[in-house]
Amino acid sequence: MDRTNHQFRLAARPSGLPEDSDWSYAEGPVPEPGDGEVLVQVLYISLDPAMRGWMNEGRSYIAGVGIGDVMRALGAGRVLASNHPSLAAGDHVTGLVGVQEYAVAKGDALLKVDAGMAPLPVHIGTLGMPGMTAYFGLLEIGKPAAGETVVVSGAAGAVGGVVGQIAKLKGARAVGIAGGQEKCRHIVEDLGFDAAIDYKAEDVASVLRERCPAGIDIYFDNVGGEILDAALANLTRMARVIICGAISQYNALQAVRGPSNYLSLLVNHASMTGFVVSDYGDRYAEGAREMAEWYAAGKLVSREDVAEGLENFPATLLRLFSGENTGKLVLKLNHQGENNA
Amino acid sequence: MDRTNHQFRLAARPSGLPEDSDWSYAEGPVPEPGDGEVLVQVLYISLDPAMRGWMNEGRSYIAGVGIGDVMRALGAGRVLASNHPSLAAGDHVTGLVGVQEYAVAKGDALLKVDAGMAPLPVHIGTLGMPGMTAYFGLLEIGKPAAGETVVVSGAAGAVGGVVGQIAKLKGARAVGIAGGQEKCRHIVEDLGFDAAIDYKAEDVASVLRERCPAGIDIYFDNVGGEILDAALANLTRMARVIICGAISQYNALQAVRGPSNYLSLLVNHASMTGFVVSDYGDRYAEGAREMAEWYAAGKLVSREDVAEGLENFPATLLRLFSGENTGKLVLKLNHQGENNA
Repeated sequence: MDRTNHQFRLAARPSGLPEDSDWSYAEGPVPEPGDGEVLVQVLYISLDPAMRGWMNEGRSYIAGVGIGDVMRALGAGRVLASNHPSLAAGDHVTGLVGVQEYAVAKGDALLKVDAGMAPLPVHIGTLGMPGMTAYFGLLEIGKPAAGETVVVSGAAGAVGGVVGQIAKLKGARAVGIAGGQEKCRHIVEDLGFDAAIDYKAEDVASVLRERCPAGIDIYFDNVGGEILDAALANLTRMARVIICGAISQYNALQAVRGPSNYLSLLVNHASMTGFVVSDYGDRYAEGAREMAEWYAAGKLVSREDVAEGLENFPATLLRLFSGENTGKLVLKLNHQGENNA
Repeated sequence: MDRTNHQFRLAARPSGLPEDSDWSYAEGPVPEPGDGEVLVQVLYISLDPAMRGWMNEGRSYIAGVGIGDVMRALGAGRVLASNHPSLAAGDHVTGLVGVQEYAVAKGDALLKVDAGMAPLPVHIGTLGMPGMTAYFGLLEIGKPAAGETVVVSGAAGAVGGVVGQIAKLKGARAVGIAGGQEKCRHIVEDLGFDAAIDYKAEDVASVLRERCPAGIDIYFDNVGGEILDAALANLTRMARVIICGAISQYNALQAVRGPSNYLSLLVNHASMTGFVVSDYGDRYAEGAREMAEWYAAGKLVSREDVAEGLENFPATLLRLFSGENTGKLVLKLNHQGENNA
């Protein structure tokens, strides 16, 4: 194996938005897989809001990335060599591959996927972690009933777009909050949401009342901040708020802004419940099966936003936080002279 | 009926803490009960944190008190005259009597109580609304299991003291947060809490970790603000936070302070659920029965803080917000030349 492996390693812990100086671009030999391990040629890297948290010191639900370590990332690739009985060269897999061209991983930690059933970016988006996040968060915590109003923020993102579509599949009304006309058009016209709110052009607090005249039964929050407060002000009795993320706060230099309207929970006998997708790790197979059925039946539209080139990783990651992506943001790696599937 | 009825009426909506000028002290004739109504001689007025919210404009879970109206209050008294089939002169009742010496109320809205079984202040405290608040909030939302750690703020108050005692009855560990040495002594020595934290003398954020080494499974919040944030920072996985009140915020001149540690819900798959006791109105009988059994068996200690004289109502109410009361704060009315039961 004489190929070179290019990588992005964490050079410093960012304060606020990650900067170029927080990364080091390194190269080294492609590693050999050990016992039970697999060598993967990484074809797509997944860009997820959670990555910002992984750059911090200390332990949240998962340990932070160490200084000098390859940046943690989900991704998809092709097996080049396998020392694991259930994976063979040529198989396509998803899992934690890191921001690099070649990864060695435990075979048990990778998921074999069918690239014929859906393109690889769909496997790391709608049928991957973001899809599972939407599925378990909405169905297990939100438990939408037909006729209820489900509002989701970050609605044009990888998780939010799926939340609205599952809400519709369950007979609920789906209202999405997103930034910009094109995203709002996308979620209504392409994804089938009932209504959209453009937080960049509209006053969310006042418009929410108008687009949700019966109030909000379920609010799926990906953003935190003012939008969470606006949603809290419009809850119905027994409403469920699902705390999935708080992208507006991840790069905050000051303390996180707490939801000052939280006493709306009190007057409405409402609840606010947080989760991370790994809480449902033992039920992924169940979720993946139902999601794949919906996707195959054309009931679930998947949208990906594909950037290219490992060298563009730092800039592409920032697009998540500036809200520029529509759909699942992935980075396609260009392996010279090879078929990238 | 030639007696005079003295009353406190709402003269102005307070900004921050209620001031004397927000009240008018009025007198008028004692009213006659109409059809289905009852005339009650008010013997005790209940002072509750919720009263501060009732003084505001607009509608929360209950409409605000109108300017010029008698201030809304729960209380206990004796029936003087009844046009209701199930109440007779001499009966003792509790209900919304208002801050006045004589009240006319619908008989259906009053609860007949046994003054022989427990003194009237207990009927408006541990066996009344505060007791029901503790009972349903802790048992229906918190669902404590044996061995779990239950933390309650406002622990020396009417609700908090009962929360800790019910937690103990269910085999949980009870830790109370209260202000001052005497209150902390009271909840441990008199009420049987396992530990106390004096928020006036100790740094709650650091001491919580020490007194709850296994983390907080259930946090019953009566205060909001910094103490809520400290509790959020110490949750266990699947912890339940019960939002019952936020007395630290009721007189805030600025916006309510939201809990900036709310993302602890996310990493712990924890929930935060609010309620008001009337949400369980159709189950009061069930709660009252079990609480009365516990009280009669000596398993529930009730503590009241009794002030005297209608004229002291404005000053006594303020004691709630300065945290001066230990146990249920009530105002005993002195009816001249009469037995006040």
